[in-house]
Amino acid sequence: MRKILIGVMGPGDNATAADLENAYELGKLIATEGWGLLTGGRKAGVMDAASKGAKAAGGLTIGILPTNNTEGISEVVDIAILTDMGNARNNINVLSSDVVIACGMGAGTASEVALALKNGKKVVLLTEHQESQRFFSSLSPDNVFLGTSPEAAIELVKAILRKRLN
Amino acid sequence: MRKILIGVMGPGDNATAADLENAYELGKLIATEGWGLLTGGRKAGVMDAASKGAKAAGGLTIGILPTNNTEGISEVVDIAILTDMGNARNNINVLSSDVVIACGMGAGTASEVALALKNGKKVVLLTEHQESQRFFSSLSPDNVFLGTSPEAAIELVKAILRKRLN
Amino acid sequence: MRKILIGVMGPGDNATAADLENAYELGKLIATEGWGLLTGGRKAGVMDAASKGAKAAGGLTIGILPTNNTEGISEVVDIAILTDMGNARNNINVLSSDVVIACGMGAGTASEVALALKNGKKVVLLTEHQESQRFFSSLSPDNVFLGTSPEAAIELVKAILRKRLN
Amino acid sequence: MRKILIGVMGPGDNATAADLENAYELGKLIATEGWGLLTGGRKAGVMDAASKGAKAAGGLTIGILPTNNTEGISEVVDIAILTDMGNARNNINVLSSDVVIACGMGAGTASEVALALKNGKKVVLLTEHQESQRFFSSLSPDNVFLGTSPEAAIELVKAILRKRLN
Repeated sequence: MRKILIGVMGPGDNATAADLENAYELGKLIATEGWGLLTGGRKAGVMDAASKGAKAAGGLTIGILPTNNTEGISEVVDIAILTDMGNARNNINVLSSDVVIACGMGAGTASEVALALKNGKKVVLLTEHQESQRFFSSLSPDNVFLGTSPEAAIELVKAILRKRLN
Repeated sequence: MRKILIGVMGPGDNATAADLENAYELGKLIATEGWGLLTGGRKAGVMDAASKGAKAAGGLTIGILPTNNTEGISEVVDIAILTDMGNARNNINVLSSDVVIACGMGAGTASEVALALKNGKKVVLLTEHQESQRFFSSLSPDNVFLGTSPEAAIELVKAILRKRLN
Repeated sequence: MRKILIGVMGPGDNATAADLENAYELGKLIATEGWGLLTGGRKAGVMDAASKGAKAAGGLTIGILPTNNTEGISEVVDIAILTDMGNARNNINVLSSDVVIACGMGAGTASEVALALKNGKKVVLLTEHQESQRFFSSLSPDNVFLGTSPEAAIELVKAILRKRLN
Repeated sequence: MRKILIGVMGPGDNATAADLENAYELGKLIATEGWGLLTGGRKAGVMDAASKGAKAAGGLTIGILPTNNTEGISEVVDIAILTDMGNARNNINVLSSDVVIACGMGAGTASEVALALKNGKKVVLLTEHQESQRFFSSLSPDNVFLGTSPEAAIELVKAILRKRLN
């Protein structure tokens, strides 16, 4: 039976210390819930930190890579999907995630949030970047949720999944 | 020799009257400059209006479609590229455009602006949606330009192209 | 650490009874080796049969779907990757597989074999379709291997993986 | 109104002298008919030769590139579509072509023929590689046509287009 996958999207090379800490915690909490963690799979920033958190809690980690080979993959990714599609793989990231959490903000992350909303997905934002909160909330008030901590973000994910099942 | 292509991205089904008017004017001005017009190719909203403007001025129109067939294509698209990739085709739209103009705003357009910035492209925003101006300017101050009219947007495109050649 | 993924590619709607039997057996043997099974993920033909075999042996099943939603997914796929890319997802199938096994033959399967060879991957053919054996062997004699049974195909996969590690 | 596009697919780096001659001639004939020429766009082999032939006859050349930038593009491509999708762009090549002509044979070309057939497209083979003639004819007898010269291939394309319109 299909495993629930929660996507954690965030900056690779420009993640802040807070982003990395949040990502690790999100990964741990996602694994603890029994969900699979889906990220962009690179050995960098939020992708890597979230995957490490998930592995620390015994979870399963899926990485959707932009490349056509295994160089640069996070060492804690279990299932590596090699797309060779560059940033177009961001659409696959969000389509394959039951819920998307954006942890931090940057151009790549913004594209994932926007693609998720375009595809009708719910997105939880976990970022202090206020312009992004205002922008995405204005784009899609019903599908954007603001988390204030990893724990709060996970509670929002649970509520979204519960509502979907009812 | 490769033709310069200017991308005009904007809402399909939710375009405002102002977006449509701006899009038509942009298409006309792009064709007048001798550039090719690149859009998402559907018979809807900004894509269709810009293509009509370009054809009115004798231009060449390229449409990058999300589908695998010619249903729903704008009738004024000359060159139809069928991707069968849904919203992932947005990455192709921006990569293939020498400069991207966002005319109006929505989730799909936001994904195109974000993907353009992620790929290092310059983007001209022509929209009254202030949250998007603030958001994208904060993401990438050097690559986001604010146009206040189709004419002003085209002047910005010219300046970007000139700078690139020098 | 990244799990080894073996791709089993074959007809969906036009699989023969022999293809389905071989696919089931391949899935079982792949799971028994501790490898992950990667397929096109649909509830049809070789994809579905191989996934059932893998689950019967307690394995992990990954499906790379052509669609943007979970309709039509094999019920025994654990990890569903939704690409919304139609047949272009075939390139992801082969890139993400450490070795590709073609079980049966058809236009879609042929595209996967050809894409695998284009990307420098090794392919094991398990099919009685002699024209395809001759054709692909002529295209890439060093990278095409002919299996005569699921067991023989798995032995070829083992030899390929061993050689790669040495 | 949408322009008819004829795709000419063939080896890049391993094209034979006969392939290159045929490709040039095909490009010329396609342009003479008033059709657009669509290729993989690289400055190599069949793609480049066909584009040169089309330009020599005053035609329009479209190139669907595997890369995300303009390096390596054929200098006679007018409209460059940058996909950054590697070999997955082969699916776009065939979907966007009204009819596909395979000029020569190799793994990449084989993937294009197979993807074309999978998508229900008609394909004209112009190659002396007999295994490929036998293989693709056996896969899809109704959609594969054998050309013996560029002129014969173009006559087959004309017949296919005529039949489609009736």
